[in-house]
Amino acid sequence: MRDLKITPIRNGTVIDHINPGMALKVLRIIGVGGTNVQSPVSVLMHVPSKKIGFKDVVKVEDRELDPHEVDKIALISPKATINIIRDFNVAEKFKVMLPDTVKGIVRCGNPSCITNLNEPVVPEFSVENRDPPILRCIYCDRILEYTADHII
Amino acid sequence: MRDLKITPIRNGTVIDHINPGMALKVLRIIGVGGTNVQSPVSVLMHVPSKKIGFKDVVKVEDRELDPHEVDKIALISPKATINIIRDFNVAEKFKVMLPDTVKGIVRCGNPSCITNLNEPVVPEFSVENRDPPILRCIYCDRILEYTADHII
Repeated sequence: MRDLKITPIRNGTVIDHINPGMALKVLRIIGVGGTNVQSPVSVLMHVPSKKIGFKDVVKVEDRELDPHEVDKIALISPKATINIIRDFNVAEKFKVMLPDTVKGIVRCGNPSCITNLNEPVVPEFSVENRDPPILRCIYCDRILEYTADHII
Repeated sequence: MRDLKITPIRNGTVIDHINPGMALKVLRIIGVGGTNVQSPVSVLMHVPSKKIGFKDVVKVEDRELDPHEVDKIALISPKATINIIRDFNVAEKFKVMLPDTVKGIVRCGNPSCITNLNEPVVPEFSVENRDPPILRCIYCDRILEYTADHII
């Protein structure tokens, strides 16, 4: 009981170096909620990290991430690393990195922005800074700093 | 990266045999949210269990549960077991079990019940069945079956 064994996975994704406190938001981003979970998922919160002091870690089996999910994770944890496991090996490993512009993953904070007026316009931002993320709406020029609260 | 090590804890609580899909609700019950987490927490979802097919497990360090929290867990996972760890040993181990009546942990589903009318009356139920939990309001006699949605 005391030792929870987390065994290696055959296929899946390990999201490491998540900012402490952000693991549950990462679960929401990748759509891991309640009873929809069909493969094992492990979550560690507030564990010591040499790199960032404390960190959260999320491991999902039988699941890889799409680019939109990776960009959303970059918005809440710019130092996160993604490890894709295939057949028990790390097949790919990379740091999340916001592209120069992001489209359709975050809402503008300006209520009068055209993207918030029920027009068929997909929100789009230029990335002014990656860590911490600072975005600028390409439509209304509004700066968005607390991006975590605006993820679509 | 592939092997997440979950080391034994000195002091804390392991909540085992949580119904699969209920781990995040258990976190909510024990008040583990985002950035308020100050000690390591581990969560396993949808892992195989000899006892109940699949299960979730939650492990929290430096934290014991109060009786209200235990009763709330019994409402969403009647087969859960609680292991209290002190100084690396299992100091107490028990199955959750709803008492014969519960008070102040769940709201009545009847909108006209006196407990839902802003009167200074604490909701109270007699426990008609433990697994699955079926409660009867002592004020309006309404039967409450989907207790998870009514936890206070």
